[in-house]
Amino acid sequence: MRDFLPADKVRRERVLAVIRERYRAHGFDEIETPVMEEYGRLHAGIGGDNEKLAYNVLKRGLDADAIRAAADDAAALTDLGLRYDLTVPLARFYATNRGQLPGVFRSIQIAPVWRAERPQKGRYRQFMQCDIDVIGDASARAEAELVVATLDTLDALGLEGGTVRINDRRVLDFMLDTFGFAVDERPGVLITIDKLDKIGPDGIIAELRDRGATAPAVDAFETFLRRPMTLEYHPYGERQIRKALPEGAPDDIVAHLVGIGEAVAAARGGGDVPLAFDPFLVRGMGYYTGTIFELAHPSADYSLGGGGRYDGMIGRFLGQDVPAVGFSIGFERIVDLVPEPTDAAAPAVVLVHDRDVPAGELLALKAALVGDGSRVRLEQRTKNLKALLERAAADGYTAFATVAAGTRRDALEIKPLA
Amino acid sequence: MRDFLPADKVRRERVLAVIRERYRAHGFDEIETPVMEEYGRLHAGIGGDNEKLAYNVLKRGLDADAIRAAADDAAALTDLGLRYDLTVPLARFYATNRGQLPGVFRSIQIAPVWRAERPQKGRYRQFMQCDIDVIGDASARAEAELVVATLDTLDALGLEGGTVRINDRRVLDFMLDTFGFAVDERPGVLITIDKLDKIGPDGIIAELRDRGATAPAVDAFETFLRRPMTLEYHPYGERQIRKALPEGAPDDIVAHLVGIGEAVAAARGGGDVPLAFDPFLVRGMGYYTGTIFELAHPSADYSLGGGGRYDGMIGRFLGQDVPAVGFSIGFERIVDLVPEPTDAAAPAVVLVHDRDVPAGELLALKAALVGDGSRVRLEQRTKNLKALLERAAADGYTAFATVAAGTRRDALEIKPLA
Repeated sequence: MRDFLPADKVRRERVLAVIRERYRAHGFDEIETPVMEEYGRLHAGIGGDNEKLAYNVLKRGLDADAIRAAADDAAALTDLGLRYDLTVPLARFYATNRGQLPGVFRSIQIAPVWRAERPQKGRYRQFMQCDIDVIGDASARAEAELVVATLDTLDALGLEGGTVRINDRRVLDFMLDTFGFAVDERPGVLITIDKLDKIGPDGIIAELRDRGATAPAVDAFETFLRRPMTLEYHPYGERQIRKALPEGAPDDIVAHLVGIGEAVAAARGGGDVPLAFDPFLVRGMGYYTGTIFELAHPSADYSLGGGGRYDGMIGRFLGQDVPAVGFSIGFERIVDLVPEPTDAAAPAVVLVHDRDVPAGELLALKAALVGDGSRVRLEQRTKNLKALLERAAADGYTAFATVAAGTRRDALEIKPLA
Repeated sequence: MRDFLPADKVRRERVLAVIRERYRAHGFDEIETPVMEEYGRLHAGIGGDNEKLAYNVLKRGLDADAIRAAADDAAALTDLGLRYDLTVPLARFYATNRGQLPGVFRSIQIAPVWRAERPQKGRYRQFMQCDIDVIGDASARAEAELVVATLDTLDALGLEGGTVRINDRRVLDFMLDTFGFAVDERPGVLITIDKLDKIGPDGIIAELRDRGATAPAVDAFETFLRRPMTLEYHPYGERQIRKALPEGAPDDIVAHLVGIGEAVAAARGGGDVPLAFDPFLVRGMGYYTGTIFELAHPSADYSLGGGGRYDGMIGRFLGQDVPAVGFSIGFERIVDLVPEPTDAAAPAVVLVHDRDVPAGELLALKAALVGDGSRVRLEQRTKNLKALLERAAADGYTAFATVAAGTRRDALEIKPLA
């Protein structure tokens, strides 16, 4: 978990403000849920491996006897936990508040989540997520709205040229079925396939044989992987999707994938569709039931976000299935890629004053500049004026003026910093 | 703890954005700390009664033996807790990051805190605080900057006419000393005096006698309270402060209070100083060492915020005393008082479409309007069009257009949502 100093914090808030504004423009509405949810809800088997990483909150008012009694039942010690994602809380929120929401509800959630991960580079125990979800629309339009809003947001941040890799969980099921993998070995096979980018086809096949996966199925998969063709990622469309799959892919699944591409193309006004079909895209979460996405950008060799369709989850809370699909921008991964804005911000002035300037004079000068639209910081003059001004510049100040006792507003000489 | 639906959330974010922008204009810099702090730090005796209300986080990976062993030492069960205020984390942040901060550090913190309160009207277990603090300036200028920034922020929110009630902890010490209360009974006497607004002078004196406070001291206090004068809250200045106190108030304390008023007056460009000296203002937190504030506004009969000087606290973490003073706007108390802005927001259009409009046509129309700067929501036509449009209006949409299959951009008739 990290402290954010002013320069980082202002950058983060600026990026969040752009994301919030773009998401809203695309017809999504922001909601907020409490950071703590009930323990039982967080540990209902929906959150996958993240459930093990949850921070759980001690019940209030436990005495020694209650603690001893709870020794063999950790759930008796805890009734609440910090959310590890924004999807489980959204499903709970929708079930709670459905009567007050539109028929198709497009939500924004911009908020932190917590996971008790082992510390490692690029992983934090508290991190921001920026999610949009469409609840109540089973059609490909929902996926298309998410993709268009996400790419428009990247564009607005100065990260043009993003691409969405796309697949469907049912495509994976169809392929594993076609090759002949048994149902109970499929989760393990998917974990291996998920490594294709890292270990390549040879690594995949070797690992599947090591796992002891059904041998004829591995043979069939190997033949398919090594067939004499290159995966064509462009142009995105029915022909390319069919070519990337074994014969006989179900029409409805292919039509859904094609429909997303057509709607995205229409919204982007033609040109290259920023979608790449990837039949080996897996995504870890077990709750996905259909489309899955990952966000790619030329400036990074890792995914900048992702999401998918989870039509079964809301039913767990509501007792009635409602289609749902979401897309999350990996805020911590993009915030350092976003270029600084080139347009000048509002003027920001440091007033460097002598020790003996009366407080009233200083505050009157400051108020006058603030009233004119400047950001103003007071700094008492130090021996090392250069260091003082450099620090102010690092905090975004652009100008300075020196103030002695009796300096009046019209005598202030405001000079650029740097 | 509460869910926030779109209409509430957008209002909250709008108010927070104004607060953040005004605080920044006044030279404060925003920081962020993790929501969890170490258990020991949260329970170091600084947080007063709030320590008892902390949510504590269960250690990860405890087995049954470890839980049994912890039965008589609840601190062995927990290593982290959710912050109950933003002041303890700020003191820890300053001690951690001091080398990277300006000599006088003016911080903004806009963030939630948690207290396991019994549910009651207007009290929440998760609530937002908006704090500004000045660290490293012992002069009255620090208090004046806080007061000016706070009142300017209220003005920017449309809550003009705010007043800051002000006192100094040392004034209370001086009075209790003058009347003759023993040192060990003073905390209890202050708890009683804090009720003056509610129970009046008669109630205060009766309660002090019930408490068994030193009788001659209560007599002296009663004589003082009933002396033939009305407390004059205006004009704020030395004469009024001296008149409101027993003879012999220490010059340095009075001068500090007067200095705050002079600097605020200079910043506000003369006119009535929006300060009211109140010698019976107490504020609950034990860590205050000097000036204390409360924010009052004609639209509410309760305090909208408060703060004070806590020169001793940072030394607890840093091992070296650093003066500090803060002011917190009670966000949950003001958010419902803030008037809606009267200037029109960006256009927000609902596209009400027939079921059979292809996704590509819809998304192209939506993209065209988004590209022109509108916020756009798609809604499939329902039998009750009126209810649909009313809900959209409640979410801030201002116009709508109907879309049939084949409707082109130039044929869209955008009508106001009255």
